[in-house]
Formats: sequence, C-alpha cells, structure tokens
Amino acid sequence: MRIEIICTGDEVLTGKIVNSNFSYMSQKLEDVGLSVVWGTTVGDDRERLLEAFRLAASRADAVIVNGGLGPTVDDLSQEIAAKATGCELVLNREWFEKMEAFFTRRGRAMPPNNRKQAMLPATAEVLDNPIGTACGFALDIGPARFFFTPGVPRELRRMLEEQIIPRLLAKTGRPVTIHLKRFHSYGLGESHVDTLLTGLEEMAPDGSIKLGFRAHYPQLETKLLVRGADMDDVRRKLAPVEAEVRRRVGNFILAEDDQTLEGVVLQALAQRSATLAVAESFTGGQIAARLSPLAGAEAVFRRGIVSRDPAQLRGSLGLAPAHAEASTEAASEIAEALREKTGADHALAVLVDLDDGTDRIELGGTICIAVSAGARTLTRHSRLLGGREWVRLGAIEMGLDCLRRYLQGLPIDEKIDFEKK
Amino acid sequence: MRIEIICTGDEVLTGKIVNSNFSYMSQKLEDVGLSVVWGTTVGDDRERLLEAFRLAASRADAVIVNGGLGPTVDDLSQEIAAKATGCELVLNREWFEKMEAFFTRRGRAMPPNNRKQAMLPATAEVLDNPIGTACGFALDIGPARFFFTPGVPRELRRMLEEQIIPRLLAKTGRPVTIHLKRFHSYGLGESHVDTLLTGLEEMAPDGSIKLGFRAHYPQLETKLLVRGADMDDVRRKLAPVEAEVRRRVGNFILAEDDQTLEGVVLQALAQRSATLAVAESFTGGQIAARLSPLAGAEAVFRRGIVSRDPAQLRGSLGLAPAHAEASTEAASEIAEALREKTGADHALAVLVDLDDGTDRIELGGTICIAVSAGARTLTRHSRLLGGREWVRLGAIEMGLDCLRRYLQGLPIDEKIDFEKK
Repeated sequence: MRIEIICTGDEVLTGKIVNSNFSYMSQKLEDVGLSVVWGTTVGDDRERLLEAFRLAASRADAVIVNGGLGPTVDDLSQEIAAKATGCELVLNREWFEKMEAFFTRRGRAMPPNNRKQAMLPATAEVLDNPIGTACGFALDIGPARFFFTPGVPRELRRMLEEQIIPRLLAKTGRPVTIHLKRFHSYGLGESHVDTLLTGLEEMAPDGSIKLGFRAHYPQLETKLLVRGADMDDVRRKLAPVEAEVRRRVGNFILAEDDQTLEGVVLQALAQRSATLAVAESFTGGQIAARLSPLAGAEAVFRRGIVSRDPAQLRGSLGLAPAHAEASTEAASEIAEALREKTGADHALAVLVDLDDGTDRIELGGTICIAVSAGARTLTRHSRLLGGREWVRLGAIEMGLDCLRRYLQGLPIDEKIDFEKK
Repeated sequence: MRIEIICTGDEVLTGKIVNSNFSYMSQKLEDVGLSVVWGTTVGDDRERLLEAFRLAASRADAVIVNGGLGPTVDDLSQEIAAKATGCELVLNREWFEKMEAFFTRRGRAMPPNNRKQAMLPATAEVLDNPIGTACGFALDIGPARFFFTPGVPRELRRMLEEQIIPRLLAKTGRPVTIHLKRFHSYGLGESHVDTLLTGLEEMAPDGSIKLGFRAHYPQLETKLLVRGADMDDVRRKLAPVEAEVRRRVGNFILAEDDQTLEGVVLQALAQRSATLAVAESFTGGQIAARLSPLAGAEAVFRRGIVSRDPAQLRGSLGLAPAHAEASTEAASEIAEALREKTGADHALAVLVDLDDGTDRIELGGTICIAVSAGARTLTRHSRLLGGREWVRLGAIEMGLDCLRRYLQGLPIDEKIDFEKK
C-alpha cells in the first residue's frame, strides 16, 4: 500500500514550527509495517491544497492529511476535501452536539465560529476525537482513501493509533495484530548490537519478526516488529526472541518499551523505600533534572548539589579542601559525605574533568563516578571524547546507568564502546 | 518567486530523524523575504526522485534539494539530476582534488567510493562546501533552477546562507542587503506585543521593514526584517525602529539577536566579577543546568542545590525546619543563607508549590522567588497555570528573568500576561 502524508498550514510551511507530526506519523506507520512513500507540505492556500489532494489521489492508495480542521478562516481542509470529491459540506448534527457538550463541561458557551468544525463533506465517515473539538474524517478522493486529522499533536496521536492504523491494516488484509517490542540500551553502538543479534530474525517462522534500530545518542533503541494472527500468536512468536535479545545484549539493556532510564532508577529506589542524593559537576544539574520532575520523585530524591568547583562541593559537605583533579577517591568521599549529610541511603557522585582548550571534536573529559549505599561504595573511571556537549551528555547517562546497574546487582564498571581505552 | 524544497532520504521519510532541515531552510528563506510554496519528502528511490524533480520543475521557479550527495549507493541526487536534465555525469577534477586534500589534512587516505561525490552532471555549477566532502551544485531542470545541498545540517546551513540565498536574491532583482533584527522577551503574549507595536512598520519608508513573531514558550521572539541598498542603508532605516521596539516592549526584552537569557545573566555577573549560587525545588536542577554548562560559568556559578523537600533545602543551609509551604519569606531566608554558606555574592532561590492532583491543563503552581545581593533581598510571588510541565518551564524562566532584571536595575515584580491575577 502506497501512503502519502500531506501536512498543511503556513506555520509548518514557513518553518515557524518544526514538523514533528510528520516524523511521528511516519514512524508509527513503519512500526506496524506500513510505508510512507510521499510527504507533501503545503500552506493554507485553496488552490495548492486542491492540487495537493488531487496529486496524492493519483499516486497513493491512502493519504493522511494533517491540520486545517480548526475553527478559523485559514482552516480549509473540510472545504477543499468537499471540493475535491465534488460533494457539499453538511452540518454533522452529532458532532455539533458533542462540541456543545465539550464547552458546557468547561463552563463556557461555544463561540459561533466553532460551528465550522462540524461542517463535513457529505460522504465523510467520522473519525472520533475524544479530546478536542476538531472532527476527524475519512473519505474517498478518486481511488484513494483520505484520512483528515487535527494538527494538535496529542489529538493527532490518539486518532492515528485508535482510528486510522486499524483501518489501514484492515485495508492491507494482512494478519491484524502487529506488535512493537523495544529495548533501550546504553554503551554499545548500533553496528555492535546489530552484530550481537546476527541470526535473530531467523529464529521466528515466516519472517514474522523484523529487527530495527534507532540511535539517539547516548541511547540506542533496538526494535522487534512482530506480526501474528492475534496477540497470543504474537506473544508466542516473540517470547523466545525477546529472551535472546536480553541474553545477548544483557547488562546494557537499561529499559524496555515506554520505560526510561531515570524511571527505572526511580522505581527501583521507590520499591525498596530508598532515598537518593546526587552530587554533580560539569553535568550542571542535568542528572537531578532527569530524576526530580518525575511523579513520585519527591519521596525518593532528597537533594542535588551542583558545582564545577570541587572546593564548593566538598565545602558544602563539610569536607576539607583536597587535590582539585577528579578521581574515584574524591567521588567516593563526596558520595559518602553526601549520604551522611542528607540522610539519604543512596548517593551518586559524578565528577567530570573537562580537557582544556576550545571546543572541538577531539575534546574529551575524564569521568569519575561513585555510588554509595549500605556499607559499600562502588566506583567507575572513564574517558569520553567528542566535544563539550558530547562529554556532558555521556557523563549524565553513565552516571544514571551506574546507579541503575548498582540497583539491579550488575557490575557498574563494564567497558562501553564510546569509551577511550 | 515560487520556491519548492525537496527533502530526500529514507531516514527522513520513515521518521527515523525529525526533519529540522526543512524548517531551518524555510525559516531562513522567510527571513530574507522569500517564500516556500511546496515541501516534498521522498525516499532514496530512483523513480520517485525523478518524478519529484520533474514535478517541482513544472510548478516552481527555484528548487532546493536536500540530501543524497554522500558517497554510498543510496545517495542518488547527482545521478537523478543528470537524468532529469538529460546530460552525463562527469568527474569534477577540482572537487576530486579538494577531497583528496581534505583527507590528507586528516592524515587518512580517501576511500575509493568517495570519488562518486565528485561526479557531477555536465551542466552543473559548483556550490562550495568548505566544511565537508559533499559537493553542492546548481543546474536548470526545465524552466526551474535547482540547488543541491548536503544533508549534514551544518554543511547545509553554510551553503544555504553563503551560496544559495545570494543567488536567489539576485534572481529576484531586489535590493541586495537584507538584515534580520531579533528581540527575545518573556512575559508578554504574541498578540499583546503585536498590539504594543502597532504602527511600527509604517515608521520605515517604502515598506522596507517587516514585523514578525515566533513564539516558543516561555519566550517570544520579535523579528524585524529590514531591506536596504547596503548595510549602511539598513542601519539607517533600522535605528529609529529598533529604538522604538526597546521603548515599547521595554523591561520585557531579555536578550537580542543571538544572545540567550542565561548568557545575558552570566555576562552581567562576569562583568562585575560577581558569583552566584542557586537553590531550586520543582524546577529540579534546570536553572543550574541552563547556566552551568556555559563557557566561563565555572568562574561565576558557585553552587546549585536542588530539593523538593523544604526541610532538605533548609537543612543543607543550616536553617531550622519551618512551615512547609512556599513563601517569599522562605525564599528570602534560603537565598540569604545560601550566599552566606557559599560565599557567593548573589543568590537566587526559586520555590514552587505545585497544586495537588493529576496533571491537567488547569493544574497550577505557586512560585516564590528571592534574589539576594548586597544588603538587599528582592522577592517575587506568582501563580502560573497550564499543567506540571508548563508551570515548571515558566518557573525556570521567571527565576532567571528576575535575576536578569535585578542585574539590570529593573523591577523584578512586574506583572506578566501568563500569570493568574
């Protein structure tokens, strides 16, 4: 099936907003085994919208149009859809009443121009939008099925997943159930994991599992796309393969599916009713900022301290000044003092000595990490290259990952690919 | 002039990467008064690329093609450009030697497949790429001028600004010098600033200044696009208008052009050889994280402390436990104790009491800020609505902006549009 995505709106066309809806839709469709072959961006312009709809109808089997369903004069999707199909716009009484109820629930009267949002082409099938006033709809233009979606990202997401993808999959006539299993790892490059997973796809019958990757430094996402007759069939096919991924990528897997590294750390601490304090230098508060805004963090995250100046970090913990260079000994001392001062039962210290000189790709940093808990303090020493920002991002991830490894009883000093030996 | 942008590559089409090159190009073109009318995204596919080039040639006057100039087999731009024009690919000896020199400077031999990057359509005009091996080029396909650019963002940016925009402006026959003046503000909404600046465009002769906005919460960017015969003419036209913007938007302007709020704060502190310490709660380390990674921050930013627990914040500063609710008194006490403890001559405390309950658009937070310096401690009390994330972002910005205002001798408690009265 050839799919085209048409993104509409002057804001997108002029670059006022980055078009993340396109990549979101395209990725979600890929994730269920559907492929986008054309992407078109066009402004709020009658003539060009009509031209774009006609062109898409001539070269695609399914078309998703994003944006232009709002109440203002520059929202043109319904009008041009009606024109392209040669039918009238008619008031959808049901949607109109739904909108009125929507406003009533918020204690407001519906402004008159919202009526426009319930005017749909006569041949349209409604696609429900449970969280907004923009009414999605589907109709045929020539031989192609068109799906009209709202520009608001959360409304689009829900409509795509709940309404459009099932219709597209039904149209393909393929086995209905498609499932995406995801693993997040830190420390191994994409080609390394690809090699580790050689032969994995062959474990499943009939090419029913497809392996893919998505690298977003410092993390790597490994994806298994599974097709089956139903969810039981999917689970049966996936079980041995996902177990094999866990076996081969092992300790480097830090989270699965919608989990995040900071979420996994927080959950592990919360489960044992434990508390945490963090000391950081060049990472500048970013480790605290990953953990601290999470729901439930207030019961776990006791305190963060941030300073590039070792004397300040030490001074704030009542430690005497010491040699200025970062070392695992210094990190240990700080982590232990931090636990004592804050009453937290876990402490993480991440110290970074950034190389001197102007920022450049060869610029590196020495990273010294200590995790203190119970009677033990574990440490990790590492060198990362790649410039200021790269070192900073790497140090944040490595610090959090050391804590994750400690909490899961894994070695915290396993060598990673990005590290200078 | 009708401009089309064609973004090529499977990574972009499948959503593996968000297409920020498109919005970047489109915005840069808008900034010099040129408009994109079509955007097309297409994968690494010979047939579809050719179709996209032919279609663009039929409906646009100028076309920018992004991506597909690399050395690998899926980089197809030169090949399809040659096919679309009906000419041969020939080796550009000059570019080939430039690439060899590029590799020699890095102490490496050029891999054989890089030769492909110097194979250009016979009719192509070279567009220099001083920082990479992908050779840009321009040629006519039918009545349209095509510009082929690399996918690597920094290479694209330089080529667009230095090579392509001047050629496009020459094509339009408009005055050559175009300048963009930008103001960044916090606290006033777009429509409010638009109203404040009523009549501004009319101050300049012949419509030579165009006013525009770009909102990215919490900041607003106000843009003046100035056209002139040369830079002196631009400066002469701009001077009274930019002075008027500063007069009308006044204290809300936090930075201009490439400056950032955190950069302005850091610079103001560095200029007076001053130092800073920051205490924060729900903002979770994000205030520290804005300041601390900047070059030069190590001499200014003494210490950051982060905790959602008031007792922890107070305890770490030797203050007795107190009433748990955020108040300007509590913020003052913390800021003053922080200065004393750290030896910093400036301290900023930002306390947030987030409303109870699940996250929703009506969820708000009470924000209490204190700036302590010299013999004075100034405070600010505010309520923001809009959900967890919105409150957090607003509190970060408001905290930094209070400090900016203090350092510039401005009132720190001026009411803003986003605030619940």
